[in-house]
Amino acid sequence: MKSIILSIGTELLLGQILNTNEKFISERLKELGIDVLYRVTVGDNPDRLEEVVKLAVEKADLVVISGGLGPTEDDLTKETVAKAMDKKLVLNKNCLHKIKGFFRNLDMDMSENNIKQAYIPETAIVMENDEGTAPGFIIEDNNKIIAVMPGPPREMERMFKDSLIPFLSNKNSEKIYYRNLRLIGIGESDLETRLLDLISNQTDPTIATYAKEGECSVRITSKKENLDEAKKSVDSILPYVNERVGEFIFSYDDKELIEVVADKLKAEKLTISTAESCTGGLLASTFTDVPGISEVYEGGFVTYSNQAKIREIGVSEKTLKEYGAVSEQVAYQMAEGVRRVAETDIGISITGIAGPDGGSADKPVGLAYVGIAAKHETKAFKILIKPSNRIYNKRIFMLRMLRILNEKLDEANMLKQR
Amino acid sequence: MKSIILSIGTELLLGQILNTNEKFISERLKELGIDVLYRVTVGDNPDRLEEVVKLAVEKADLVVISGGLGPTEDDLTKETVAKAMDKKLVLNKNCLHKIKGFFRNLDMDMSENNIKQAYIPETAIVMENDEGTAPGFIIEDNNKIIAVMPGPPREMERMFKDSLIPFLSNKNSEKIYYRNLRLIGIGESDLETRLLDLISNQTDPTIATYAKEGECSVRITSKKENLDEAKKSVDSILPYVNERVGEFIFSYDDKELIEVVADKLKAEKLTISTAESCTGGLLASTFTDVPGISEVYEGGFVTYSNQAKIREIGVSEKTLKEYGAVSEQVAYQMAEGVRRVAETDIGISITGIAGPDGGSADKPVGLAYVGIAAKHETKAFKILIKPSNRIYNKRIFMLRMLRILNEKLDEANMLKQR
Repeated sequence: MKSIILSIGTELLLGQILNTNEKFISERLKELGIDVLYRVTVGDNPDRLEEVVKLAVEKADLVVISGGLGPTEDDLTKETVAKAMDKKLVLNKNCLHKIKGFFRNLDMDMSENNIKQAYIPETAIVMENDEGTAPGFIIEDNNKIIAVMPGPPREMERMFKDSLIPFLSNKNSEKIYYRNLRLIGIGESDLETRLLDLISNQTDPTIATYAKEGECSVRITSKKENLDEAKKSVDSILPYVNERVGEFIFSYDDKELIEVVADKLKAEKLTISTAESCTGGLLASTFTDVPGISEVYEGGFVTYSNQAKIREIGVSEKTLKEYGAVSEQVAYQMAEGVRRVAETDIGISITGIAGPDGGSADKPVGLAYVGIAAKHETKAFKILIKPSNRIYNKRIFMLRMLRILNEKLDEANMLKQR
Repeated sequence: MKSIILSIGTELLLGQILNTNEKFISERLKELGIDVLYRVTVGDNPDRLEEVVKLAVEKADLVVISGGLGPTEDDLTKETVAKAMDKKLVLNKNCLHKIKGFFRNLDMDMSENNIKQAYIPETAIVMENDEGTAPGFIIEDNNKIIAVMPGPPREMERMFKDSLIPFLSNKNSEKIYYRNLRLIGIGESDLETRLLDLISNQTDPTIATYAKEGECSVRITSKKENLDEAKKSVDSILPYVNERVGEFIFSYDDKELIEVVADKLKAEKLTISTAESCTGGLLASTFTDVPGISEVYEGGFVTYSNQAKIREIGVSEKTLKEYGAVSEQVAYQMAEGVRRVAETDIGISITGIAGPDGGSADKPVGLAYVGIAAKHETKAFKILIKPSNRIYNKRIFMLRMLRILNEKLDEANMLKQR
């Protein structure tokens, strides 16, 4: 099956927002075994939009469209697609009911132009929007499929997963199975070099490496007549991947590092508290992104000033003076202090320099110390990252904290220390 | 001048990398007053690439291409563009010299296929690459301009700024000025309704509305012969926009809400501390994303458990029992408590239900209370958001906290309360 991806919106052509939908849709179509011929972005201009839709339907079996389903005047996707496909728009009562319910739940008045969103091309299959007001839809006509979804990534991604993938899976006879391994502590080019013999000789399964901020992933994909065979094919190569890069893998099931850590803490019923300086609450916020984390996460301190470190978690004024706030000794005392004050099994701390200012030759931007305190042992670790902007540095510091914690949790002595 | 942006690379169509070049090029062309009609991504496939290049040259005055200039076999952009424009490729000695120098500087051997990169279409203007090996070029032919640049963002961006902008500035007489207003507390369709008369009657300046998670923006743009006139045109309409939606505008200069709040705190030399339950450190982390925030941000508490609320910031056990952790009373005490403990001018707190579990009919997911304490006054505010997933809810809670704080900072009594 050949596809074309269309993104609609003048704000895209003006460069006001980054188009992340294209990447998401490309990845999912690839997993479904569907080729992408082109991706096209066009503004909220009815003539150009109609021309592009007609051309795309002519060249591809599947056209996946996102954007331009909003309630306002410049949102023209639905009208233009209906016109290009020679369909009338009809009021869909279920959609109208759902949109009204959306506003009722928010205790807001529905504006008249939201009614426009309940009109759907005749014969189209509705894709429900569980994240917003604009429903999506699928038109099947003359062996062509046109899927239309809203532009906001949260709405589009949910609709894609819940409605479009099941629809497309039924159309495709081949089944795809993949596994996404997640790694930290290795760069992408080193990763690729270590897997090169496997990558070069691949037919099925195929192996691909990806990099994103602070971590890498390895995707192993198989396309077979049935899912069991595809799964068997993917699993057959796992031992060879493990042999080469197993030490860096923190998840075999595409889990986030924070989820892996949270699962270990929950399994061992170990409570934890956080004391952060340079990450400024990012680790606490990342912990509390995990549903049900209150089982093990007690809370944390953002001890940004020296006074806060002294007052709240008992760091010694003398140590701060002697070694400076960014030191192994202070990280050590912060971890012990937060563990004691919050009465948890584990205390984890960080003190460092996130930049852009505050660095020196001795203690540059990108330097930090992480402390981990448990009942019988407290340790401090030096980390030094290649710094970029402040927000990136905070994120990498946080990932490195989690990586150290994850390794510690695997060591028997830490787990037994309550 | 009308333009089309082409991105070349199979890795883009596979979703392996995010296309950030398109956004960069769109923004720069907009600043130059050049309209973008379409953006198209195509893989390393010579037939499809040639077809797209020919179509683009036919439809636009300017075609900006990035990607596919690498030394390997699948890099076909230059050959295909030369063929589509009926030009021969000729060896450019300056380019060859520069490529050789690049490898010499790195103390590396040049591979034979790098010589391919020194071939340029006849009559083309070379754009030097100061970040890599592949030179770019500009072909001018029959009133059409085709600019070709390498795909790696660092190489493309530098070449665009150093070579393409000067070239295009000379071609274009019109200048663009725009202002991006940021708003919170109003939905996009309501916003558009209130501005409808201005939007409908627009010629210059033009007004457009945009929405992103939790906030909206209004972009006012003018295109004139010189920048002063364009600026005057944009400013002339500001009072009318203010009249209609001024109460929701938090920035007239495209600033983030956190920056606006941080600037006000710094200007008034007001220190602040945070006590968070349902946002779990996200407000602290957002504050500490701002460089130099330590001037006013003292630190914070993530009091996730009831015990932490009692122990660390002195919330009364009786109040927690009587009203529950998610209550106006607890938010009030948290704000007063953190202000007292951290010894700051302002204390801000939140307690609520981020979901997915923990909600009830009385206190649903999406309900939270925000407390703000200053010297002579403490107030608590109820907020109720339409909940989505936990991470989204935390973000919207945090934005609502900042919105309340921003409003309070504008009230004279809060500012004088030290």
